[in-house]
Amino acid sequence: MGKNKKLVEAITSMDVDFAQWYTDIVKKAELVDYSSVKGCMIIRPYGYAIWENIQQDLDRRFKETGHENVYMPMFIPESLLQKEKDHVEGFAPEVAWVTHFGEEKLTEKLCVRPTSETLFCEHYSKIVQSYNDLPKLYNQWCSVVRCEKTTRPFLRTTEFLWQEGHTVHATAEESMEETKRMLNVYASFCEEFLAIPVVKGQKTEKEKFAGAEATFTIESLMHDGKALQTGTSHNFGDNFAKAFNIQYTDKNGKLQYVHETSWGMTTRLIGAVIMVHGDDNGLVLPPKVAPTQVVIVPVAQHKEGVLEKANELKEKIAKIARVKLDDKDKMPGWKFAEYEMKGVPVRLEIGPKDIENNQCVLVRRDTLEKTVVSLDNLEESVKELLLNIQVNMLEKARKNRDEHTYVAKNIEELKGIVENTPGFVKAMWCGDRACEDKIKEETGATSRCIPFEQEKHSEECVCCGKKAEKMVYWGRAY
Amino acid sequence: MGKNKKLVEAITSMDVDFAQWYTDIVKKAELVDYSSVKGCMIIRPYGYAIWENIQQDLDRRFKETGHENVYMPMFIPESLLQKEKDHVEGFAPEVAWVTHFGEEKLTEKLCVRPTSETLFCEHYSKIVQSYNDLPKLYNQWCSVVRCEKTTRPFLRTTEFLWQEGHTVHATAEESMEETKRMLNVYASFCEEFLAIPVVKGQKTEKEKFAGAEATFTIESLMHDGKALQTGTSHNFGDNFAKAFNIQYTDKNGKLQYVHETSWGMTTRLIGAVIMVHGDDNGLVLPPKVAPTQVVIVPVAQHKEGVLEKANELKEKIAKIARVKLDDKDKMPGWKFAEYEMKGVPVRLEIGPKDIENNQCVLVRRDTLEKTVVSLDNLEESVKELLLNIQVNMLEKARKNRDEHTYVAKNIEELKGIVENTPGFVKAMWCGDRACEDKIKEETGATSRCIPFEQEKHSEECVCCGKKAEKMVYWGRAY
Repeated sequence: MGKNKKLVEAITSMDVDFAQWYTDIVKKAELVDYSSVKGCMIIRPYGYAIWENIQQDLDRRFKETGHENVYMPMFIPESLLQKEKDHVEGFAPEVAWVTHFGEEKLTEKLCVRPTSETLFCEHYSKIVQSYNDLPKLYNQWCSVVRCEKTTRPFLRTTEFLWQEGHTVHATAEESMEETKRMLNVYASFCEEFLAIPVVKGQKTEKEKFAGAEATFTIESLMHDGKALQTGTSHNFGDNFAKAFNIQYTDKNGKLQYVHETSWGMTTRLIGAVIMVHGDDNGLVLPPKVAPTQVVIVPVAQHKEGVLEKANELKEKIAKIARVKLDDKDKMPGWKFAEYEMKGVPVRLEIGPKDIENNQCVLVRRDTLEKTVVSLDNLEESVKELLLNIQVNMLEKARKNRDEHTYVAKNIEELKGIVENTPGFVKAMWCGDRACEDKIKEETGATSRCIPFEQEKHSEECVCCGKKAEKMVYWGRAY
Repeated sequence: MGKNKKLVEAITSMDVDFAQWYTDIVKKAELVDYSSVKGCMIIRPYGYAIWENIQQDLDRRFKETGHENVYMPMFIPESLLQKEKDHVEGFAPEVAWVTHFGEEKLTEKLCVRPTSETLFCEHYSKIVQSYNDLPKLYNQWCSVVRCEKTTRPFLRTTEFLWQEGHTVHATAEESMEETKRMLNVYASFCEEFLAIPVVKGQKTEKEKFAGAEATFTIESLMHDGKALQTGTSHNFGDNFAKAFNIQYTDKNGKLQYVHETSWGMTTRLIGAVIMVHGDDNGLVLPPKVAPTQVVIVPVAQHKEGVLEKANELKEKIAKIARVKLDDKDKMPGWKFAEYEMKGVPVRLEIGPKDIENNQCVLVRRDTLEKTVVSLDNLEESVKELLLNIQVNMLEKARKNRDEHTYVAKNIEELKGIVENTPGFVKAMWCGDRACEDKIKEETGATSRCIPFEQEKHSEECVCCGKKAEKMVYWGRAY
């Protein structure tokens, strides 16, 4: 990499300043641009292409599990938002209020949806009558608005893109099943598609969603040792059903309340990909999510036959991967650096000597290893390499996560870890909100989740020393 | 159809009350639901699945012509909206204004985008420096808001879904080429995918887009003889470039303004599909846009072997079409009526006798014709039938359009046609705004477009009798 480094304006090293490293990548890989609009970002073509790949794969998983897409209005009348008490308290302080259409003042102000539970509930109350109408398994792709003072591209912006699933079921068992099913869909997606390992668990009462009975979460660990909540799935029980009067007639002719769930994933996922896989040369994309999986860079492209051969290879590879040929009139070194910055999984170099020897060079982005392969079975070599990269990236991320997962027995230990070797901290908890608050105050760490896979590291709460039965993942978080 | 009719609550006949017929279809085919939100609609799963098919095919066409997707913020600061004079005058009266985030009053109010020219321009002014950066061919899928007093699902709602393409080019020639290219993409899409024939032409000065140098349009004719503007493509020349200072350095090192286009299509297209193809039994969907292309309805499904066979056929057809098997415990007649209402192109009926004879019944939605086909080459038969329906629907729509396209030589003739036999009226026009206004006032017809394919029906303007060189399509419109 030494020789390429000189050719490009270097980005800040992540060890020097992680936040600046992140900002450098989102700008230099051309993922986003800032706009003059308060708290909002522009997602540029390369960033949006990543989002499109995420959408496509998630959407397929939703449809395979029986979900249908719908579209709800982007506005919510104030009175509708207020129907569920906890919910409005959770969101009202951060919503954008529309008060005028043109010059005309509205009789009731409208907020721009921060999330759409209330709209789905109102709709369900109209279309659900009998047990025959259940379940309804709806999802929506849209943008939502929650005002933020300090923003960071993908991680925290006033407007962001997401999907929100909203389902209604006949029984409490079914809504619990759905809540867990969708958490598992999210977890599989993160591991299989984004190569990001996750911890599955339940949020504490303090951290759960406004209006939910239970919130499940998947949590991932970033390169700087901070946690990122990657996706959440909420079981509302019949809370919203009662507030919105969503009832159905069961098989015995008796009126019953439905049970409801919601679950969402956002453009945050792109932030997670950057912070789990990126390095000091830029973005590193898992092949499955990469807009371009293979970039062909011709060497000495003005020499006879080079571009023809490069085009021929492009045609071949196009059958098995998303491939791009860069034949711009620039030095190869510049191109190498550019595609490393953009995290393209495989670079293929082909020059006159390679052609003579019926071979080409493949450079993998995740390890920067070079291999020389024959052109005879190029498709096979590329296919195998892409698979290999995808697997390797997950393993590497898992290893890193495990190496930065610690156990703390008392609050001093917890504090020490958070300050000196940030990562996930596993520690026992008595279940009291007071201890949760105290831990946050003293260490800056919040409860990330009560993992489904419990371990017993001691009998006592890490904070108060009283009897503890739950193990919790703690950490500083985005 | 006689026997099915009795089983379902009939919809209003289109000849009795076209507006009510339309409303009945959007409700009974479960395309939309009304919400309590002023002017906004809920797009239900079946309606949204149609939109997804439209999106997918259009998006492919955009990408094949070199366009990339991006995402711009949904808010526009007031000062940004005001940068181009004509543009702000066109949109300001109908925008939704956000004045507060939570309790906090904004120092500058934000409007919810009615369209995003201003945001794209601001972005382009930052990222375009040299001729090497041109062209930029961007598109965005999103929803926009333009306040409407009287609304109709898909045709006119305060919020609607659309795509908006925004491109910048080095020269006026290139932006004109792009404007026409995208109009042609729209026209081919309408004819090939939606089976809707269109008239391509240019809008008059009066009808062109706020801020554009020229607006091109495709116009379609609905069953009730009213016109629908199906898509528009605008050439801005350097109007916006000057207002937003978007300049680039050309090959000679000289600063030049870019030339810009924008083009959009909306969920209106679904309204067009309903009003071009629908009949008194409900929706009629062209196979290419239909969420379900073939529905299998088992007859006497409780009899041994029927459901097994139906499932076997489903597996077979799934290889070549989007197929659904309805094995709900309902009388087949109910199902026939339901899928006719939903416009499913082909119904496949299979019962014990059919199985005995190694055959099944295919009923095509567009003509309601039945054919009995062998199960041996079922895939081939279904494939051919779907192709045939797609072609037939376009031909039928074109024939209807042509039969309702008239020529008027003077304003009385024009008025008579508009009142008695609504449709497109071709008539010569002198080019004066005064005549255009007078025609609207006296007949209710607006200029739909100055078609690219000109004809000469007389030497004189249909209104003032002065020398006229342009033929214009006139009509009442949605």
